[in-house]
Amino acid sequence: MSQPWGIGMKEESKISKAVIKRMPRYRRYLKELKQKGVNKISSGEFSRLTGCTASQIRQDFNNFGGFGQQGYGYNVAALHNEISTILGLDQEYKIVVVGAGNLGQAITNYTYFYRSVFVISGIFDVNPELIGTKINDIEILDYEKLEEHIKEHDIDIGIICTTKNNAQHVADKLSAAGVRGIWNFAPVDIVVPENVALENVHLSDSLHSLVYHIKKTK
Amino acid sequence: MSQPWGIGMKEESKISKAVIKRMPRYRRYLKELKQKGVNKISSGEFSRLTGCTASQIRQDFNNFGGFGQQGYGYNVAALHNEISTILGLDQEYKIVVVGAGNLGQAITNYTYFYRSVFVISGIFDVNPELIGTKINDIEILDYEKLEEHIKEHDIDIGIICTTKNNAQHVADKLSAAGVRGIWNFAPVDIVVPENVALENVHLSDSLHSLVYHIKKTK
Repeated sequence: MSQPWGIGMKEESKISKAVIKRMPRYRRYLKELKQKGVNKISSGEFSRLTGCTASQIRQDFNNFGGFGQQGYGYNVAALHNEISTILGLDQEYKIVVVGAGNLGQAITNYTYFYRSVFVISGIFDVNPELIGTKINDIEILDYEKLEEHIKEHDIDIGIICTTKNNAQHVADKLSAAGVRGIWNFAPVDIVVPENVALENVHLSDSLHSLVYHIKKTK
Repeated sequence: MSQPWGIGMKEESKISKAVIKRMPRYRRYLKELKQKGVNKISSGEFSRLTGCTASQIRQDFNNFGGFGQQGYGYNVAALHNEISTILGLDQEYKIVVVGAGNLGQAITNYTYFYRSVFVISGIFDVNPELIGTKINDIEILDYEKLEEHIKEHDIDIGIICTTKNNAQHVADKLSAAGVRGIWNFAPVDIVVPENVALENVHLSDSLHSLVYHIKKTK
C-alpha cells in the first residue's frame, strides 16, 4: 500500500468511521480560512473553531501520518489540500440522480454547485411529465434507461431521491449496473453489496432528534 | 420531574446524544412494522432489523425505564407510541422556513408531508420574485417580517435553508424572536443560545464521507 501522506499512516481500513466523519468538517473550516486569506492557524485556534479538542484533532490527523508542525501550527492551504486528497476530492465523480421530485431537484442543484468534482451525468424518473424536461441543463431521462446509462458513462455514484418503497429496488439496480457509492435520501435503510459504499441522509431522524431536544428544554 | 415512561428513567439530560440519535431510527422501523400489521416483535428480530445489537437496544430503552417484556418481545404499536411520546412527536410544532430556493422548497415539501406534527406557518425570503408566490399553499413572505411573524404565531422551529454567509445572521434573528429549535441546512456551523436546540444537516460532509469510502474501495 502506498503512503503518500507520510510515514506511520494507519491502514485506511482501520480508520474509524468517526474520524472519517470529522475530516470533511476540518476541511470545511480550512476552506473558509483559505478563502479569508488565512495562511497559518495554531492548533488551539483550530480547536476553538472546529469545536474539537486539540488532542482529538492531533489524533485524527495521526491516522494519516500527522500534519502538524511543532510550535508553528498548521499551514492552512497545505492542510486543506492534504485532506482533500485523503477524502478523494482531487478526482472527478460521475453521478446519476434517481427521482426528480422536489428533493431530487434540490439535491441536483446542490450538487451542481460542486461540479468541479461532482458531475451529474443524468437524472432519472418514471414520471412521463418530467422526462425530457431539464434541471440546470441536465435532462431528466426515463428510468428504464438507468442501467444502460450507468454502464455507458461509467458512473461512480447514484443518488437516491425516491420514496422509501422504491429505494431498495433502485439501490439494487444501481449496484448491479456498477456504481461504487450510493447517497441515499429515501427514509429507509437500504442494503447494498459490500463493494458499494453507502451514506444515508435520514432527514426525519434529524428532525426528530431536534424535537426531542426542544421538548427537553420546554 | 414527572416520569410517565416507567420507574428508573434517567434524568433526560444525562441521556447521551447517541441514544437520542438511535430512538428515531427505532421508531421508523416500528412505524413500518405497524403499517405492515405486525403486532409483536422479538428482541432478536428487532435487532436484526435495526442493525443494533439486542443489548444495545435494551440499554437504550432502559434510559427511559425499559419497554421490553421478558420472553415476549416488544409490542409494536405500544412501543411506537412510547418512543413517539419520548421524542415529543405527540405534540404539534409550528415552523418557519428561511430561504425559498431549491433546498428551501424541497424541505418545505418534505416537511409538509408530516403536517400532522410539523405545521409550516411561513416561508421567508429576500428575493422579490419569490415573495408572494406559494409552495404547497404556503405563501412566501418578506424576510423583513420574520421576527414579527415568529412572535405573533408562537413559532417553535426555524429551518435555515440560506447560503452559509447568511446562516448565522438568520439564526440570531430566529433565536432572538423566540424559536426553541433550529434545523440548519446551510453548510456552516452556526452558534445558538443555550436554550435553543440545534440540529445540523451538513450535506457536503455526508457526500465527502461517501467519496472517501469510494476511493478506498477502488
